[in-house]
Amino acid sequence: MYRFKPVLRIPGPVPVPNEVSLQMAKPMINHRGAVFKEHYPAVLKRLAPLFGTQNQIHMITGSGTSGMEAAVSNLVSPETPVLCLRGGFFGNRWVELCQAYGAKLHVLEFPWDGGIDAGQVGEYLKQHPEIELIFMVQNESSTAVLNDVASVSQARGSHRALLVVDAVSALGGTPLKMDEWGVDVIVSASQKCLMAPPGTAFIAFSDRAREYSADCRASRYYFDLRLYDKYMEKSETPFTPNIHNVFALEEALNIIETEGLDNVFARHILMRDMMRAGARALGLELLVKDEDASPTVTAIKYPEADSFRARIRTRYGVEFAGGQGIHADKIFRVGHMGYATPLDVLTALAVLEMDMKKYGEATKAAEQVMNS
Amino acid sequence: MYRFKPVLRIPGPVPVPNEVSLQMAKPMINHRGAVFKEHYPAVLKRLAPLFGTQNQIHMITGSGTSGMEAAVSNLVSPETPVLCLRGGFFGNRWVELCQAYGAKLHVLEFPWDGGIDAGQVGEYLKQHPEIELIFMVQNESSTAVLNDVASVSQARGSHRALLVVDAVSALGGTPLKMDEWGVDVIVSASQKCLMAPPGTAFIAFSDRAREYSADCRASRYYFDLRLYDKYMEKSETPFTPNIHNVFALEEALNIIETEGLDNVFARHILMRDMMRAGARALGLELLVKDEDASPTVTAIKYPEADSFRARIRTRYGVEFAGGQGIHADKIFRVGHMGYATPLDVLTALAVLEMDMKKYGEATKAAEQVMNS
Repeated sequence: MYRFKPVLRIPGPVPVPNEVSLQMAKPMINHRGAVFKEHYPAVLKRLAPLFGTQNQIHMITGSGTSGMEAAVSNLVSPETPVLCLRGGFFGNRWVELCQAYGAKLHVLEFPWDGGIDAGQVGEYLKQHPEIELIFMVQNESSTAVLNDVASVSQARGSHRALLVVDAVSALGGTPLKMDEWGVDVIVSASQKCLMAPPGTAFIAFSDRAREYSADCRASRYYFDLRLYDKYMEKSETPFTPNIHNVFALEEALNIIETEGLDNVFARHILMRDMMRAGARALGLELLVKDEDASPTVTAIKYPEADSFRARIRTRYGVEFAGGQGIHADKIFRVGHMGYATPLDVLTALAVLEMDMKKYGEATKAAEQVMNS
Repeated sequence: MYRFKPVLRIPGPVPVPNEVSLQMAKPMINHRGAVFKEHYPAVLKRLAPLFGTQNQIHMITGSGTSGMEAAVSNLVSPETPVLCLRGGFFGNRWVELCQAYGAKLHVLEFPWDGGIDAGQVGEYLKQHPEIELIFMVQNESSTAVLNDVASVSQARGSHRALLVVDAVSALGGTPLKMDEWGVDVIVSASQKCLMAPPGTAFIAFSDRAREYSADCRASRYYFDLRLYDKYMEKSETPFTPNIHNVFALEEALNIIETEGLDNVFARHILMRDMMRAGARALGLELLVKDEDASPTVTAIKYPEADSFRARIRTRYGVEFAGGQGIHADKIFRVGHMGYATPLDVLTALAVLEMDMKKYGEATKAAEQVMNS
């Protein structure tokens, strides 16, 4: 059954719409030629509303982590005092990256089942005026927590620290207002809510971040933002890009723009609420409280979750994600981001209720949410 | 005409066979799931004969340059004495990368129209026993020169320096025998002779290079070979890979293996010889002598080459590449690598002879080479 029609319900890479996938099969073009120079800036312009920014967005050929390293390698010199807000696996990735670049590391720890407390961040910054950079994750997909970026940004008050945000599993699934919120760097990637294949990261720097990065002493070349800025003058990338991801993103943006960004966000909220209502109806315990819950992924506690996931995959062809870090084998995660609908959530719940022999109980609860 | 059926005759990205392109449109899968874990090591195993190595090959999601930076960032600590062999734009890229990582830089300059003189390298090494790493390019696509990697490797004699080779535009188009030649690091990419879309780099380290890299103090994370080694134990990549490039490469390797690697190499040699005979028949001057000529790309001197290229592109729909660095606007380059045949070379020559009103003269010469 699995091989016949597998259902991918993980927090990325997400299922790619056929019309987007087919863009990947278009004929090859010259990445220094007229066609690329037309499509590349056009797609970046269409991404701007999702970032909520007037800042230049760059595409980096690489995984989401390559975008994160682009942020760190353009900002963190040896001994730069940085503050990482760690509440999950990807918050920890910022820590590891900053360590790799020799930062003077401050880490504020948050429980791996809830959001970042902006008040605590504000207090810490008051005690540490020397902090130059703050690193956080908007949607911590490892715990299924949505952090409040606006509040963290505001908690800085008059503190000069730049705010760097990993929006990899958030961008296009939940509001992001880089300029309005005063965020200095945003990193994201193609394979989550943007519904395109993996292989492309995005990065946007504010003017303040760009000025700050001019003094950065970290070794960098492939991730050197100055090269990306320079080549952008001729609508090119410094290194041969993943050309077809540009075409794929154009098609994905057609879909997103047709639905309308507000409707996209509302759909994600609805999927979250349905998933949570259904899980609760089955007596399953959610990892995260309602107020911190991610709109793009839901984490559910489950003893020996990995063998459970294998059973669901084998029996029903539905693939859930496992836990990461301290949650390994203790939770499973259901992705409902990008090319996913409320009906897909019903399917995800259906296999849970069948496995538990609680026929119809979860779908009933979720359907009531959908119809309310 | 251009938009109807453009012909890409640049040294990469190269035209991708339909059956390879269509792999890019397959349904998305989990990069931590069973299907990926089956296909990923399988494709790496099939790449081994092209590298000529038993060493582990890794895929890095990124441009070719990301593979080059992976080599540098795992080997070059601040003040490491390195020797870069520079005879073109990509030789210079090694210089820029080593500079970015704070190497103690030695550069041996070679003319940008000929091969690296291995004897000179041997002499330099004798005078500089402190050199720890040598960086070179096998196929310098900017000048259309094929360098003799085996000779450079041998010229080291008993010198301990590790040899790092950029084989981006060589791998799969010309023999490469990493183990037999004693090369320590090979870097390549998907969009050249491998006939797949861009977005994936490859890197192979010898045991000696891996041991040496254990002491490297450079900042690295996305390119940290230790992470790639660790994740390879479970047939995974540390970061979300460009999944479909694995499928594309499998299909491309089907084509390569069906033709047979020796036949692939012979086809490239034939295309080179046809291209050169045709250009000569038109009275055009080749940038490079026969003994240094690349089998995958040919460089031809041409005054105001860029406007010539624009004319050819507009009139005949054929896209040639321009010159880079000191050769900008002074040469054009014809790619004949990967998914290219002798008939494609005839087409490339046909547009030259039509533009010069020397009807049939170049094709005649090239056809005679093909039939001989």
